[in-house]
Amino acid sequence: MSASPFDHPFLGSLLGDEELQSYFTAASDIEAMLVFEAALAEVEARFGLITSAAAEEIRSRLGDFAPDLADLAAGTGRDGVVVPSLLRQIRSGLSAEAAAALHRGATSQDVIDASLAMRMQGVSLVLDQRLAALGNAFAEWGLEAGDREVMAHTRMQAAKPVRFSCKIAAWSDPLTRCRLRREEIAPRAFALRLGGPVGDRRGFGDEAERFASEVAARLGLYPAPGSLHSERDGIAELGGWFSMITGALGKFGQDAALSLQNEVGELVLEGGGGSSAMPHKNNPVGAETLVTLARFNATLVSGLHHALVHENERSGAAWSLEWMILPQMAIAAGAATRTAQDLVAHLSLAEEPAVPPTP
Amino acid sequence: MSASPFDHPFLGSLLGDEELQSYFTAASDIEAMLVFEAALAEVEARFGLITSAAAEEIRSRLGDFAPDLADLAAGTGRDGVVVPSLLRQIRSGLSAEAAAALHRGATSQDVIDASLAMRMQGVSLVLDQRLAALGNAFAEWGLEAGDREVMAHTRMQAAKPVRFSCKIAAWSDPLTRCRLRREEIAPRAFALRLGGPVGDRRGFGDEAERFASEVAARLGLYPAPGSLHSERDGIAELGGWFSMITGALGKFGQDAALSLQNEVGELVLEGGGGSSAMPHKNNPVGAETLVTLARFNATLVSGLHHALVHENERSGAAWSLEWMILPQMAIAAGAATRTAQDLVAHLSLAEEPAVPPTP
Amino acid sequence: MSASPFDHPFLGSLLGDEELQSYFTAASDIEAMLVFEAALAEVEARFGLITSAAAEEIRSRLGDFAPDLADLAAGTGRDGVVVPSLLRQIRSGLSAEAAAALHRGATSQDVIDASLAMRMQGVSLVLDQRLAALGNAFAEWGLEAGDREVMAHTRMQAAKPVRFSCKIAAWSDPLTRCRLRREEIAPRAFALRLGGPVGDRRGFGDEAERFASEVAARLGLYPAPGSLHSERDGIAELGGWFSMITGALGKFGQDAALSLQNEVGELVLEGGGGSSAMPHKNNPVGAETLVTLARFNATLVSGLHHALVHENERSGAAWSLEWMILPQMAIAAGAATRTAQDLVAHLSLAEEPAVPPTP
Amino acid sequence: MSASPFDHPFLGSLLGDEELQSYFTAASDIEAMLVFEAALAEVEARFGLITSAAAEEIRSRLGDFAPDLADLAAGTGRDGVVVPSLLRQIRSGLSAEAAAALHRGATSQDVIDASLAMRMQGVSLVLDQRLAALGNAFAEWGLEAGDREVMAHTRMQAAKPVRFSCKIAAWSDPLTRCRLRREEIAPRAFALRLGGPVGDRRGFGDEAERFASEVAARLGLYPAPGSLHSERDGIAELGGWFSMITGALGKFGQDAALSLQNEVGELVLEGGGGSSAMPHKNNPVGAETLVTLARFNATLVSGLHHALVHENERSGAAWSLEWMILPQMAIAAGAATRTAQDLVAHLSLAEEPAVPPTP
Repeated sequence: MSASPFDHPFLGSLLGDEELQSYFTAASDIEAMLVFEAALAEVEARFGLITSAAAEEIRSRLGDFAPDLADLAAGTGRDGVVVPSLLRQIRSGLSAEAAAALHRGATSQDVIDASLAMRMQGVSLVLDQRLAALGNAFAEWGLEAGDREVMAHTRMQAAKPVRFSCKIAAWSDPLTRCRLRREEIAPRAFALRLGGPVGDRRGFGDEAERFASEVAARLGLYPAPGSLHSERDGIAELGGWFSMITGALGKFGQDAALSLQNEVGELVLEGGGGSSAMPHKNNPVGAETLVTLARFNATLVSGLHHALVHENERSGAAWSLEWMILPQMAIAAGAATRTAQDLVAHLSLAEEPAVPPTP
Repeated sequence: MSASPFDHPFLGSLLGDEELQSYFTAASDIEAMLVFEAALAEVEARFGLITSAAAEEIRSRLGDFAPDLADLAAGTGRDGVVVPSLLRQIRSGLSAEAAAALHRGATSQDVIDASLAMRMQGVSLVLDQRLAALGNAFAEWGLEAGDREVMAHTRMQAAKPVRFSCKIAAWSDPLTRCRLRREEIAPRAFALRLGGPVGDRRGFGDEAERFASEVAARLGLYPAPGSLHSERDGIAELGGWFSMITGALGKFGQDAALSLQNEVGELVLEGGGGSSAMPHKNNPVGAETLVTLARFNATLVSGLHHALVHENERSGAAWSLEWMILPQMAIAAGAATRTAQDLVAHLSLAEEPAVPPTP
Repeated sequence: MSASPFDHPFLGSLLGDEELQSYFTAASDIEAMLVFEAALAEVEARFGLITSAAAEEIRSRLGDFAPDLADLAAGTGRDGVVVPSLLRQIRSGLSAEAAAALHRGATSQDVIDASLAMRMQGVSLVLDQRLAALGNAFAEWGLEAGDREVMAHTRMQAAKPVRFSCKIAAWSDPLTRCRLRREEIAPRAFALRLGGPVGDRRGFGDEAERFASEVAARLGLYPAPGSLHSERDGIAELGGWFSMITGALGKFGQDAALSLQNEVGELVLEGGGGSSAMPHKNNPVGAETLVTLARFNATLVSGLHHALVHENERSGAAWSLEWMILPQMAIAAGAATRTAQDLVAHLSLAEEPAVPPTP
Repeated sequence: MSASPFDHPFLGSLLGDEELQSYFTAASDIEAMLVFEAALAEVEARFGLITSAAAEEIRSRLGDFAPDLADLAAGTGRDGVVVPSLLRQIRSGLSAEAAAALHRGATSQDVIDASLAMRMQGVSLVLDQRLAALGNAFAEWGLEAGDREVMAHTRMQAAKPVRFSCKIAAWSDPLTRCRLRREEIAPRAFALRLGGPVGDRRGFGDEAERFASEVAARLGLYPAPGSLHSERDGIAELGGWFSMITGALGKFGQDAALSLQNEVGELVLEGGGGSSAMPHKNNPVGAETLVTLARFNATLVSGLHHALVHENERSGAAWSLEWMILPQMAIAAGAATRTAQDLVAHLSLAEEPAVPPTP
């Protein structure tokens, strides 16, 4: 038990995902924010908004900048965002000209949202690879199973025999669709929101849209037609995507747990969990964890939809709510893919399936 | 106050949507189920699974079938689904051969899910038209506003002036994206789930996939590669779509309510709501209602993600949960588009904007 | 499928509760509002705030008042609340003096919240009786079961034998606690919120608190120290209570469905649901419905907690959200108690329990 | 942005609560589990279930036990619970007799739930003190404000003047009720769940109930009539309590943010947050954070109600879901009380209230 089940010294190995968590450290966030500021300065120099000398000085300063975390913490507690303190620290090592050129025309939300979009895109690609691997593992299992049949169950009752490969398809097909969805939502979820203080890009010159596209290109993000600061549908959609992954895998986990019941014995699990009191137990811990993660994300996705009611040009309240929810949903999706891969590798169809009850 | 705010004699005019509610009457549901059974019989005859005479008899019987609702209610209370009773009623007017041919190879979920998909597609098209109309209304308002500026607010504080057309874009852009999303999700949300008792389409002959596509085509639905009975991601996604509509309009409503504050006076509302105790009030009822509907759907969307954990080949529990949630979300989206259209028509930018405070 | 599963011509018999729904008709609401206005007038006459003649005229008018529902609907669509239209209709049959005396010092929220509190208290008492009956049914079943043992399951695996009466206690104990909770929350959930236009009771004279207590007493409601208009914790708490009922019964339903699996066969269900395609099925429809209702309320309870963020002296947005959610939660709790009573009556311990697997 | 906003190096100072987080470290959890095992052994010795020598050896071993966290992590990832690994580590330093005596009759859930209940009780007492302090601060402010009036707002529109002390009461009263609720829920939320492997306390001798009460007394917990392992209503109720705290304070935050709008100017905030782009801003960061925390908990509470559907004698899935949610809700409640205390200390009524608009 811990504030976060993910970072917890022992629960983390059950519910967390080290690879995905690396995207959500303060260090990763700061690094992405520095990348943003460097790209911004570079493009501003190209568009003649700041001098090349200033851009070069900024680039150099960012290259070896080491943040004072205690000061960032104090600043975030006060300002609600880390950016004012971060900029102050960076500027302390810059000439007056470069200090003025840094972050020129931008606002806190530009930096923070860009960092988020960059890292979320990375997260989505890791998940995409895992979904592909899971799809392959399911496909292989389906081939192995051939024409073997198991008892289908509808409404918790034995129905009629069905090919086991049909069951596998019900686990695998939604993952394939999730991969397709990633491509569909990418231009909205991984777009650069670059709007300046009130979202109108006024500080980026006469060609603000082309300017923003140029910055987006350097960050590997999609250009956005508007600034999007207060348009959060891409975030809600991304959260929905994470939850559709955990939901599909939660169904797999639930089915596995049902099939692994001693009385059913349709599947065999190698190396389940042990009990402190009942040595004979071989608990389907991974299967249950998939259900847990599905319900966790199904709960959280609601909060991101509430955050769509983002008042005026920037809502500190709705925006911070995203910070509390979205990373957790991403990591839960990671933990689910990790757990599912492990579960598939340890499951097999029982040699001698339990005799289906004559209904 | 009522079980359903939508069907309520007086709350319905505030929170409901007559046009969309027509898709969710028992009559609409039954009609769509009859259309499904007729199409199924017709294609089965073409594929030689039943005789043409049986198909013709079924077609004729369905054409003038009048359900006994009390019997359907009793059956649903017992069976958890309406279909067994409905079929019994239909069969009572059929020859033995046609009675056996009716619903051949299909199962309750095929009928119910097909009816839902057909009606949901209709609902989505109504919403799409309204989103288009709203987009036009916003665009027109933006043109009218020209270069006029209002005070932007970030974190509930006056920030800097911004063109009013920028604010409008933040209300309108997400709606445009919702129209695009409808096209993306259509093949998943409006697909024919036709699987038979355990979802393997075994009863539809050797060319089951082509058979299912043929039925789908007649119903105006998308063919699905598998039976999908227990794969509910298209439903969760559709619910997310409804909630993204209400969320975007909730932000518009919230912004309108803030701009209409007497102390701000940036917008003017013609014909707001009256009070029982304060005759001077001109309450922004529509604006508030948009926030209500957004939070309602943001709450409900969670339940559809929980319903992804659909155990085995058919979960009565998870499936019925969809029935309790999805229609309400659709109608809330309808009510929001209806209310937003009305609100836009009654809002205007104040002639003499309140003097922006010197920050 | 319908806007509301409760009022639906055939789904209602599965998911609804006629007795509880009677509390949420427009007629019940209007009747309670008239009772409130009559009590208000009567106490105002006693406190000398209006004349006895006016109170008598009001009493008489309310006694045979027949509302024009179409006008109420139009008014609610415009004003966001039904009260201004309702009062206009009532006043049309009153002298000028009585018209001025009607609703004196009160506001829409006073009427609507009072009507809700009165009806919710009634609902809670019906539920309380059913919980008591369920407790008795479980106790009886426990006595019948005596020392009989069944296999306990932890983490979906056979664990060790346990007395069946222990399982029953896990279903019954939370219901007992729900009965206790009803008493605890009653003074907060069934309190009279009587505050006038801005909640300060200014219009009720120098002894406003005593005045409000007097009105509360006549309505069978608890007096509240303040006006509570914008303090909604009693509502959220009541919603939590409904959801704890459905949650406890959802656990019972889930356990029953698991025990009724053909492969487990620990329980026997008399008269389960039939299938349109598999005549051998005896589906545990009631057990699944209990799970559905639990997840429905678990989803909705979130919205009532969001409604705690009730801005300023009255939030149309947050308040209307309660209207959309709370009645549904009450009816779902009703449907769950009704379904559970039916389920208990049709379940029995299998004569020959399935041989527990040797773990 | 981080997996957990609470433990995050810089976001933690905005959204976290150091004092409360200390209850959720692995160290705190382990310490409480050791306290449980020691109390269990001691009472077992008194009841003659183990020898005094074994109890003494256990006590001594637990006194200087230092866990191997890496091994606990590996074990938790495998077993789904930390307890088997933890016991293995402890037993490695015990004689065979004491090793057998350790944890005798108990199961993993007994230990973990006891640790949770002990720490949650501590958390609730910290919160209770802060609620008391907040109540005092509000009361003092109300006295200071005396008869001063501000404009009341209903439905986001100026209504009528109201005493500012009335507004304060609407913020403070729900906190008072939360203190009362703590007392009501304590016997259910802070009860000892001590049931053994399948919850029937069979391993604790003939006087199992008295035995369990004795252990409870030593741990400062409430005795429970049954084992409660699968009865989770006390947990859902506790989560509801946390969310009612954040909800009440979220209303305060929302009201403060509205009153602090430049155009309203009813309140003055000393030392708000700064902006990276607009030096004139004095952002009501704390007020917005209260709204964020309210919506976070309003979202999460739903998951705990879903966890009520706890299948059979122990559900790994539903139980782990609690671990992912409950600590976060506790800390959010802590952060809200901390933030509210700070906000109250920096808010004051404007000397010259903005002229109320003539409605």
